[in-house]
This record gives sequence, C-alpha cells and structure tokens, in this order.
Amino acid sequence: MTHMERKWLVSHLSSHLGMRNFVIIGNKATTTPTFSLEDIPGTSGRLDILCRCVTAAFVLSHGIRRDVCVYLVLLGGETPKTVRLDGETLRHLNPDERTTAALLKKALVVPATPDWALSTSGIFVRTGGLANVLADLKGARMLCLREEGADIRSIAGCDLSGDVAFILGDHMGIAPKEGTVIEQAGAVAVSIGPVSLHADHCIVLINWMMDTNFFLGYGQGRSPSSD
Amino acid sequence: MTHMERKWLVSHLSSHLGMRNFVIIGNKATTTPTFSLEDIPGTSGRLDILCRCVTAAFVLSHGIRRDVCVYLVLLGGETPKTVRLDGETLRHLNPDERTTAALLKKALVVPATPDWALSTSGIFVRTGGLANVLADLKGARMLCLREEGADIRSIAGCDLSGDVAFILGDHMGIAPKEGTVIEQAGAVAVSIGPVSLHADHCIVLINWMMDTNFFLGYGQGRSPSSD
Repeated sequence: MTHMERKWLVSHLSSHLGMRNFVIIGNKATTTPTFSLEDIPGTSGRLDILCRCVTAAFVLSHGIRRDVCVYLVLLGGETPKTVRLDGETLRHLNPDERTTAALLKKALVVPATPDWALSTSGIFVRTGGLANVLADLKGARMLCLREEGADIRSIAGCDLSGDVAFILGDHMGIAPKEGTVIEQAGAVAVSIGPVSLHADHCIVLINWMMDTNFFLGYGQGRSPSSD
Repeated sequence: MTHMERKWLVSHLSSHLGMRNFVIIGNKATTTPTFSLEDIPGTSGRLDILCRCVTAAFVLSHGIRRDVCVYLVLLGGETPKTVRLDGETLRHLNPDERTTAALLKKALVVPATPDWALSTSGIFVRTGGLANVLADLKGARMLCLREEGADIRSIAGCDLSGDVAFILGDHMGIAPKEGTVIEQAGAVAVSIGPVSLHADHCIVLINWMMDTNFFLGYGQGRSPSSD
C-alpha cells in the first residue's frame, strides 16, 4: 500500500465510524490523588493497569485517536468515581505510564460531583460507577470482553459502524455486581482469543480489528483498500 | 470455548511452535545505567519504548510467555550493546514500565563483552549490535515490521511453526544502516495494518496472530480448536 492509499484509507475509515468507547473497571483503583508516582502499582489499587489501557486506546505512532473515548471506573474508594478521557480534546498524553498516571492524579484532585467536571484538556471526572456510564452509552453497541465469552469472530458481519462500547475488567476481572449491570445493559460477552491477555493488550487488538475492518472480513483476504 | 478446551489449545499451540523472537532497535537507547527512573523517556534515549515492548512480548494475564525471546539493540552509546531476555528463565518481570526499566538498569551495570553475561535471571547483556543478533538468529524465519512493507496477510499460509524473528524499530523507525543489515539477513518486510502503530502494540498483535494461528486462517472462520 502506498502512503497516499494508506492516508486515504485512514480518513475513509474514520469518516465511516462512530465513537469507539472503552470502559475499564478498576476494581480497587483509588479515587484519591494520594498515590505515589514512584510506586504506582503498589499505592494506587493498580492504576498502572488503567494507565496502560489509556495508552492502548489513544496512542498512535504519530498522534492521538480522536474518535476514541475512555471511561475509567474507579471502585477503590468509598464512593465510586469515573474519569472520562475524550480523544477529541485530549491533550498532554504521552505514551509513558508515569505521565498518564500524573494526568489521572490531577483529575482526582478535582472535586467530584455527579456532573462531569473538567480537569486538564479532554479529561473529566465525576462521582458514580458503571451503571451511570452504561446509561450514558445507551444506544452504543456494547461488547464485554470475557474469557468465557463467545469467540469474537462470532460477531463477524455485525454492523459496528455506529457508536461502539467495549467493556473490560482489570487484573481482578469483572465482579458479579458489575457483571449484572453489564448484562442488563444488553452487552454481548466476547472472548478475544485462546490465551488470557491483559486489558490493555485486548484494547490494542480491538483497535486494530476496528481499523482493519476485521469484523467485515479483513482476515478473509479482502483488502481494506478495495472496500 | 470451555476452560479445558482453552487449556488444551494453549498447550497444543506451544508444543507445536518454535521460539518466537522479537528484535527491537533502540536508535538512541542508552547503553549506561545512568538514566533516571523518575524520567525514563527524557533521560534514557527512550528506553521506555523498549520497556513496553518487553511487557508486550512476555506478559500474559496469568504468567510469562516461556517461548519468547527478546533482543533489545541499544544504539545510543559509543559501542552498541544488546540486552537479551529469555522467557524460559526470565524472572522478576512485572507489567509496569518502571519495574522493567529497573531490570534493564541492572543489566546495564554488568560489564559487557562480546560474550553474553548474565544479569538477573533470564536477562543477558553483551556488546554488539543488530548484525550480531541476526547472525545468532540465522535459521529463523525473519520478518521486519515496516510501514511500507507488504500487507501482513500476504504471508498467510507461511510455515511459521519453527523459529521466527520479528524485527521492529522504535519511534525513529529503522535507519538505512540497519535496514541494509536486515535485508541482507533475508528478512521479509511486512506491514501490520493501515494505521501506523507503536512497536509494543505491533508486538501485541503479532503475539495474538501467532496464538490464534491467524496466518493459517484464524480470520477465515476456522476455529483454532478444530485444527
């Protein structure tokens, strides 16, 4: 593929896709900014996992995915909080883990109410957990990544051209309480492959599958540029 | 797929695959341990990129990929150095970036000669650059990830059951000098998709492609468990 064909394809794909949402559940993730950037895994309820998910969701070789929105559901405090990152206006995101953690730290300083409050550009925070997020995403096609879900190829041919939401758990997976909320929201449980992967690696794969029209036949030998 | 089927499949795949090697070129990556863990991107010649490649290559949800070997080619010093990480004996690897950087820091303290010297378990260091690594990997099927390479689907049907080596550049790509070495080693240039991705994200995709027998038809609707 030439550079021009590639450029055309990317703009062509973008113009035909809705918003790509990723919802990641941080089962023990802190809701306060008191964690240490010198030991993120040990002091933040594994916010490091969520940082890597943010990078996987947004970062391209030369830019940010503008059609992506990430919801980090932080369940490690007394009251759940959610941090939202909007690709359209997101700034200051670097690919390294520590910078992302510093951005989240700033967001957790902002006083949270049930309404979204702006932290740095493109980053918002509010109180509330998964049910609120899925209510916001009503209308999006929802897929939940679960080891015991149906093979992801089984959704081949599905129309994913509108808004889509992918729901993932952290190292502790998805607890029964959140599982029920997800099921009630109508999400379909899918499994991404035979080996159990970290959430951020699943996000990399999903982005690639969406980029390459995998569900519409990338893997079947059809060239994306001939669509 | 049931848990037992999954387990069987993983062991089945592993027993039929050779070594999966990843060679990552750090164009400006430091060869000394003097960088700061508080600012890895700014002080190490972007060793943070190589750290994320290591995680992408090895880390599974519940364990380490034992059939993977990573070569980090560090070209940011007066004399090139290479750090090798062997999945078979690798220990102390956590998924967070800082821990990996700390392991590399330790490896760079070890006095390097043209022979491999052991640092911590499964991590080795020596002087020498890309040509030495590719000489070591002679006999492996070599694929080089390049934006201008052939669509990766074009290698569908290739026999990748023996040793395979995937060669990737960091944020600066692959310089002409290394490009020539790669070409002379007989590597085939392939492109992984329409959007230019970070090296670690490419590694996640390659691992998944190898896990799912993608090149033998995963995307074509064949169930891996029916192979």
